[in-house]
Amino acid sequence: MSVLYRRVAFIGIGLIGSSMSRAMRRDGTCETIVACARRAETLDTVRKLELADVVTADYVEAVKDADLVVIATPVGTNGDIAKIIGPHLKPGATVTDVGSVKQAVVNAVQPHIPEGVHFIPGHPLAGTEHSGPESGFPELFEGRWTILTPLPGANAAAVEKLSTLWRTMGAKLATMDPVHHDQVLAITSHLPHLIAYTIVGTASDLADDLRQEVIQYSASGFRDFTRIAASDPVMWRDIFMNNRDAVLEVLQRFTEDLTQMQRLVRKGDGQALQDVFTRGRAIRRGIVDAKQADPEEAKRHG
Amino acid sequence: MSVLYRRVAFIGIGLIGSSMSRAMRRDGTCETIVACARRAETLDTVRKLELADVVTADYVEAVKDADLVVIATPVGTNGDIAKIIGPHLKPGATVTDVGSVKQAVVNAVQPHIPEGVHFIPGHPLAGTEHSGPESGFPELFEGRWTILTPLPGANAAAVEKLSTLWRTMGAKLATMDPVHHDQVLAITSHLPHLIAYTIVGTASDLADDLRQEVIQYSASGFRDFTRIAASDPVMWRDIFMNNRDAVLEVLQRFTEDLTQMQRLVRKGDGQALQDVFTRGRAIRRGIVDAKQADPEEAKRHG
Repeated sequence: MSVLYRRVAFIGIGLIGSSMSRAMRRDGTCETIVACARRAETLDTVRKLELADVVTADYVEAVKDADLVVIATPVGTNGDIAKIIGPHLKPGATVTDVGSVKQAVVNAVQPHIPEGVHFIPGHPLAGTEHSGPESGFPELFEGRWTILTPLPGANAAAVEKLSTLWRTMGAKLATMDPVHHDQVLAITSHLPHLIAYTIVGTASDLADDLRQEVIQYSASGFRDFTRIAASDPVMWRDIFMNNRDAVLEVLQRFTEDLTQMQRLVRKGDGQALQDVFTRGRAIRRGIVDAKQADPEEAKRHG
Repeated sequence: MSVLYRRVAFIGIGLIGSSMSRAMRRDGTCETIVACARRAETLDTVRKLELADVVTADYVEAVKDADLVVIATPVGTNGDIAKIIGPHLKPGATVTDVGSVKQAVVNAVQPHIPEGVHFIPGHPLAGTEHSGPESGFPELFEGRWTILTPLPGANAAAVEKLSTLWRTMGAKLATMDPVHHDQVLAITSHLPHLIAYTIVGTASDLADDLRQEVIQYSASGFRDFTRIAASDPVMWRDIFMNNRDAVLEVLQRFTEDLTQMQRLVRKGDGQALQDVFTRGRAIRRGIVDAKQADPEEAKRHG
C-alpha cells in the first residue's frame, strides 16, 4: 500500500484512535503518527505500546504539518478542539472525526476550519465495550461500515482519499446526510445503549440479595445488556447530549410500543405476543442476510 | 460414567431436549433414549440425526417404563402433557422439566404426578437464539447454571441423582424456591427479552427506507437486541403468559427508570447521565468477576 497521508495526528487516542493508528502502521498508509491526549496516563500508555512516533499533550504541536487530523475524543469536546487547532492547520490538510453523532459535530467544528482545509466528518460503526489505547486492535474495522457525511461542496479528491484509507483498513464505505445519519444511529445504537444502561440501573437498584443473584444468574439475556452498558460513560454522555432530538423521538416510539407490550402481558393476549415475537425473528433474518451478523456467532444464552 | 437412568424419555426435543440427549449419549448416563414430539417434521429430524433410540408421537408410549421423563416443551403445554402421561408413569421414576418459569409449571404439573413418582422442576440457564432438534449440541450446558426447584418433601436421593446428571453435562447446580426463581429470571431474562422484542418491533414499524438502513447499519447495539429477539416465539409467549406478575413488576420499575433517563436527556443533564452510565460499568465488572461473562468475549460493536 502506498502512503496516503505523510503525517497523521490523532487528537484523542482511545479504542478507535489507537485501532486506526495500529491499522495505518500495518498498512503503511502513513509515514509519521502523532498522538495527542490530555491525560498523562493515556500518553504513557501510548508511549509504552509504541502506538505513535510523536506523543504530545499539545494540540497545536500535534496538528502542525499534519496531512490528516483525526479527532477521536468524546463528541462534546470536538468544538473546543477545533477552535484551538483551527488556526494551525496546514493548508490542504484533511480533518475528520469518528463520533457517533454527526450534525452536532458539524455545527461545532466547521466554523473553526479555515479555507483550504477539508473537514470530512466520519463515523466507523465499530467498537467494543472496552476503552482506552490499550483496547485497540488493527482489525476492528474489518467488514464494518464507516459512514462519511461530507458537507455540500466537499472536495471530491479529499473525500476519495479518506475513503481509500478506510477501505484499506477493511471498512465498507457509505456516505449520508448528517441529520439522516443521526436518525439511523439513534435507533440502531443510541436507543439500545440507553435501554441497556437503564435496565442495568434497574437491576442495581434491587435489594442486595436479589442483585447478587441477578449477577450470578445473568447468563440469560441480561448479560448482553450489561456488555452494552459497559461502554465508555463520558463518550455516551456526550452522544446523548448531542443527539437529543433524534433520541427522544425514537424513545417516544419505543415507550409507546413497550406500553402496548405491557398491556398484552397484563391481558394475557398470547396470540398478539406471539405475532410480535415472530416479527422479531424475521427482522433478525434480514440482518443475518445483510451480513451484519454472523449466523455462527450464536452465543450461548438462555 | 455409569448409567444414571436406564430409559430416558424426552417429551419435546428442541434445542434443550436434543442438547441433553446428545450430552447423555456422550456421557453414557443412560441406556435408551426415547424422543416424543407432536410434529412429524421434528420426528423426522430426530430420526435423521439419530438423536434417539425410539421415536414416537405418542406421549403414553414414550413414558412407559421410562426412569426419567424430561418435559422440554413450551411451558404452556406442561399441564396438559402431565395430565396425559401421569397415569402411565413408572413408580419410582423422576419427572423433570426445563422451563424458564417454575411456579406456574409446578401448579400445572404436580397435581397429575402420582404418588411414588418424583417431580423435580428444573431450568438450565442455557440456550441460543436457534431452536429445533437440529440446533442442539452436547456442550450447551457447560459452565452454565442449572436451577432445580424441588418441592418441600422432595426425595433427596432423586434430587441428588438428577443433580449428578446435570453436573455430568457440565452444569453448575443451584436450588431455589420456584417463586424466587421466577423473580430472578423476570429481571435477568424475561424483561430483557421483552425489551429486545419491543425495540425490534419499533424498528420494523419504521418507514421502509429507514428500516432498510437500520438493518444495514445494525452493528451498533441493535444487532445484539435482534439476536435476543430471534428466540422461539411460542416458547417466549408461554413464558410471559406464565410469569405475568413478576414480569409486570420489574417492567414497572424499568419504565419508571426509563422515564427518568428520558427526563435527563431532555434536560441535558450530562452529569446525571454520566453517573448512571458509570454505575452500569460497575455492574458489568461484577458479572465478569462472577465468571458469568468471559472478558474476552468482547464482541465488536460500536
